[in-house]
Amino acid sequence: MLGLDDIRAAHRRIEPHIRRTPVVSCPAIDALLDAAVFFKCENLQEAGAFKSRGACNVVFSLADAEAARGVVTHSSGNHAAALARAARRRGIPALIVMPENARPMKVDKVRRYGGQITFCKPTLADRERTAARIIQETGATLVHPYDDRRIITGQATAALELLEEVPDLDLVMAPVGGGGLLAGTATAAKEMRPSITVWGAEPTGADDAYRSWKSGTLVPSVNPHTIADGLLTSLGQHNFPIIRARVDDILLVNDPMILDTVHLLHNQADLVVEPSGAVPLAALRENDVALHGKRIGIILSGGNVAIDELPGTVE
Amino acid sequence: MLGLDDIRAAHRRIEPHIRRTPVVSCPAIDALLDAAVFFKCENLQEAGAFKSRGACNVVFSLADAEAARGVVTHSSGNHAAALARAARRRGIPALIVMPENARPMKVDKVRRYGGQITFCKPTLADRERTAARIIQETGATLVHPYDDRRIITGQATAALELLEEVPDLDLVMAPVGGGGLLAGTATAAKEMRPSITVWGAEPTGADDAYRSWKSGTLVPSVNPHTIADGLLTSLGQHNFPIIRARVDDILLVNDPMILDTVHLLHNQADLVVEPSGAVPLAALRENDVALHGKRIGIILSGGNVAIDELPGTVE
Repeated sequence: MLGLDDIRAAHRRIEPHIRRTPVVSCPAIDALLDAAVFFKCENLQEAGAFKSRGACNVVFSLADAEAARGVVTHSSGNHAAALARAARRRGIPALIVMPENARPMKVDKVRRYGGQITFCKPTLADRERTAARIIQETGATLVHPYDDRRIITGQATAALELLEEVPDLDLVMAPVGGGGLLAGTATAAKEMRPSITVWGAEPTGADDAYRSWKSGTLVPSVNPHTIADGLLTSLGQHNFPIIRARVDDILLVNDPMILDTVHLLHNQADLVVEPSGAVPLAALRENDVALHGKRIGIILSGGNVAIDELPGTVE
Repeated sequence: MLGLDDIRAAHRRIEPHIRRTPVVSCPAIDALLDAAVFFKCENLQEAGAFKSRGACNVVFSLADAEAARGVVTHSSGNHAAALARAARRRGIPALIVMPENARPMKVDKVRRYGGQITFCKPTLADRERTAARIIQETGATLVHPYDDRRIITGQATAALELLEEVPDLDLVMAPVGGGGLLAGTATAAKEMRPSITVWGAEPTGADDAYRSWKSGTLVPSVNPHTIADGLLTSLGQHNFPIIRARVDDILLVNDPMILDTVHLLHNQADLVVEPSGAVPLAALRENDVALHGKRIGIILSGGNVAIDELPGTVE
């Protein structure tokens, strides 16, 4: 099982390569929830998301010979940009497989960090096939976006920093897609403060982590549909047992409240947060949970959303 | 003349009451300008703008007896919220005069920080008359939003922190409306690093500081019109000589580029910045200035803008 020593070691490893993101609060949101909420602003992390933590932890863990052959991934999202950036900082190739229909903004971002892109058909089978071919040709190391112990340990450093800054939290929350962030957050939080409550939050339209956690069996995500596109992936096999052991509950929330919360964070807290990152706060707003006077830490997982991509709010 | 000792004293005074805002950079914007840009994120400052610095400096400078009678202002913008917040932290009344047509979001914000609002007609004459009446009745201290030595010194602490974090800047920029932020920024920057260049930036539709600086005579703002509504005010009498002495140039920029830059900062840097705060970066984009390889600090003066308030971009 991962422990605090692993997380502290990862933090020392990645510290020169990531940003110590600010923790901010917002009186309007505190009033709305009747609680004190501390946002860990991973939306202001390098490359726009917490993904830089895990990616740097893997890239800077590799032995020199292994690193020299480069790293590969077939994520089209924040992980790809974070991995490209981490690889460039180490001076090694980042070979990124992206579907040919990936959004130009995402493609540009990976290129800007020096990633070498290979386009493939927009199916998981073709992504995996293309990545496998590249690995065979180059000997590069595959870096999974979430289902990897080094990734989990890296992502855990966000909660480590949050609890260093605000040690007396009653509750900490993170969104859950593949589960790397939630598994890491839960590990760091429970190790640093055993009395703390840890909740995951997930869109109702992609509730495989909720169903897995409730049933005790890993349930794959089937036809997920949500505006929180960073949370479409199925829960990872390495993350599931950690989440089962360390997470106290998983809250669900519907898309209209997620979108409304993106607007709330923009308008009241001056924070750009992608829908996936707004899911924990949205879940607190939608579910009838008693929060009176509680001190709540929330990992705002990422920015990376354009104004024009946001449909109008219901507010 | 204000000096670095005054600014450091102000910083010590306000440090417990403000946020040390992060300095962030954005590879996409660096590539666009062919320069290294460091954004001092006062959009993430308490109450959403640098105004908290000056307001706290005044409020915590007052003698106990004076403070006990409260503070007054007739700003309807960020200064009002900042002053209400500062007063509440000191446990004294904040008496805020606001025009009856002020936006509900701004009114709510002042109320949330405990400000006691008196509404008046939306004319400068009625604002001043109402504030004068309150002062006569209560003996409270008027806190001008920008034309006050203690305000200038407080606003200067943003540049102080920026240069502590990034000492080797070639250029530092701030927007100019009443001139408190620019005067403070120029003083801190030139005192800490005499070789630095300091530029102001102003909307073309409210170019009184530009014309005053060029002509050497304080030119009042007449019928200003710009989306950057924080910069509509005329340059203050205390600020003008400081800006004349310390600022190397003032750049102008038109509203479409200001709006486009609000979108750019949102979409590429995950930063919510109100139009006034986007003016320096917009001015660099619009004017044909040689920036190759330069290290540039920009004070992002405030957030405080709702998504729905932003007209569509030309981008």
